[in-house]
Amino acid sequence: MTNKVDISKFEKILFLGLSEIDFGEKEMKRINKICKQKVFLPKNNPQIMRQLRDTDCLLINQGMVADKKMIDAAPKLKYIGILATGYNRIDTSYATSKKITVCNVPGYATEAVAEFVIGVILDHLRELDRAKKQARKGDYSETTFNGQQIKGKTIGIIGFGRIGQRVGYILSEGFGAKVLYWSRKRKKTLESKGFTYSPIADILMRANFITTHLSYARETLEFFDMKKICLIKPGTLFINTAPMELINLKAIEKRLKKNDITFILDHSDEMKPQDINKLRRFKNCIIYPPIGFRTLEANMLKKDIFISNLEHYVSKKALNRVI
Amino acid sequence: MTNKVDISKFEKILFLGLSEIDFGEKEMKRINKICKQKVFLPKNNPQIMRQLRDTDCLLINQGMVADKKMIDAAPKLKYIGILATGYNRIDTSYATSKKITVCNVPGYATEAVAEFVIGVILDHLRELDRAKKQARKGDYSETTFNGQQIKGKTIGIIGFGRIGQRVGYILSEGFGAKVLYWSRKRKKTLESKGFTYSPIADILMRANFITTHLSYARETLEFFDMKKICLIKPGTLFINTAPMELINLKAIEKRLKKNDITFILDHSDEMKPQDINKLRRFKNCIIYPPIGFRTLEANMLKKDIFISNLEHYVSKKALNRVI
Repeated sequence: MTNKVDISKFEKILFLGLSEIDFGEKEMKRINKICKQKVFLPKNNPQIMRQLRDTDCLLINQGMVADKKMIDAAPKLKYIGILATGYNRIDTSYATSKKITVCNVPGYATEAVAEFVIGVILDHLRELDRAKKQARKGDYSETTFNGQQIKGKTIGIIGFGRIGQRVGYILSEGFGAKVLYWSRKRKKTLESKGFTYSPIADILMRANFITTHLSYARETLEFFDMKKICLIKPGTLFINTAPMELINLKAIEKRLKKNDITFILDHSDEMKPQDINKLRRFKNCIIYPPIGFRTLEANMLKKDIFISNLEHYVSKKALNRVI
Repeated sequence: MTNKVDISKFEKILFLGLSEIDFGEKEMKRINKICKQKVFLPKNNPQIMRQLRDTDCLLINQGMVADKKMIDAAPKLKYIGILATGYNRIDTSYATSKKITVCNVPGYATEAVAEFVIGVILDHLRELDRAKKQARKGDYSETTFNGQQIKGKTIGIIGFGRIGQRVGYILSEGFGAKVLYWSRKRKKTLESKGFTYSPIADILMRANFITTHLSYARETLEFFDMKKICLIKPGTLFINTAPMELINLKAIEKRLKKNDITFILDHSDEMKPQDINKLRRFKNCIIYPPIGFRTLEANMLKKDIFISNLEHYVSKKALNRVI
């Protein structure tokens, strides 16, 4: 989407929860070219409201808020940029009403998340963790290790956008797994590549591994409800590298208690302490910090897209506008 | 290779270090059809020599010995089967002189080892181990995790037989890595598939990951000598899922001390205690029990090939003869 705007440089960029170190020297040079003044403030700093008064560009870090109160405090605001794909804490409808452009950073972590999913599947199947621990103690016996292979297994991919497709490609083309997918829109052009569209219930009842790659929106809230979570075949490895809002927590807790599936998640940082603590009790719930998207390559691409968005905006073409 | 033989059933099969449980019911039925008598003895049992007297078929487990003394104790011996790919503890030249057929089990673990190699690369790159440990303690921060991706990296594969090729295929076709290979015989027909033949020194100096898939033979003993190990590029992940006889231990120890590469091995069980203990001291040496070949699928295939070898022999065509 492109949008004509009338500036060639920002008067003042306010960085919230972001520092020069987050960007690096080369990237800061690019930013310096398109602004007259820069102010860096940590998250929740009391000066934020005062600093917003003459800010025309607000840049915030992942998961941070840009609400009505903040937008009202910044009468000159023209642009909000978030250094993340998700922007659900930005009041986009209020920003629209004020003709403020909001840009996010999509797609930078496709490879990172896809490779992470393959990694956690293999780590789980081959018990790499237990194996290393045992060898570290000087016990080199293999008799208790009976891993399984990916080749020939059935993988269910729920949500078949960029990341879902990449996971599917690696598993099917690389490893020789059978890929079933579900997506709101059936993608017939992809089906010649060996991906089979299936109803969700079929996937849940047939797959050996299920991996979710839906984006979080109103219509995907608790997409995995009690009914769907009950349908998952015993013995299945269920992986969610998407936000935990997709999952009904009572349902997953109930199923984990039954101890017949393994659940892996990595959006642990966004959960309420009481919720994550409930899941932590289960041995068959494997919790990661949010590292699915964390690779050096993804981080470089993320910063590049984030700054490109700014550069395009000042050169009158907004990139990755969400509103 | 086929070999005409003159029996339709074995008179007596002596199993060493193998029990009925190692095979399972269906497999034992197949064995019962082709022998008149079965005797099971554990490894190092004092009865072995006496039992060998009237044995015409000796079946031994992985890593076990069948030497001149044992062969001399079994004047009726016609067949030695080992439930493994490697057979370097069988005196094959003496067996040949006595016209004894020796069969091994090749190729059963191609997929298992290839997937294990991908697993250990991803586990290492993404620090899955440390991430899980940290989350288990209730710390869900991601800031210290800066993984790397496989896509775009250069992988060096030394030894390009069945396993090496499978590792190469998954990494190149699936993940989008660049694959350089070295093999005693250059395999030009494979090069159209995106595998680049390179001199060893080039691979060692250029690859981000090196994985060795040479078989252990007289000419590969300490193939990775001081000179080669010194050439490995700093920062490289060096993986050996083949026997440790391929590696000069002093050289790898010296390089690990320098702390600029990471070495992963899984043939820990075959090493002398003093040797493995030396390597265990290094944090940049990741030791696994020998689980590379351990999957349920590989185990099923292994037993199937092992029994097929016997069936083919009694039906006058030996399969997988090594002599």
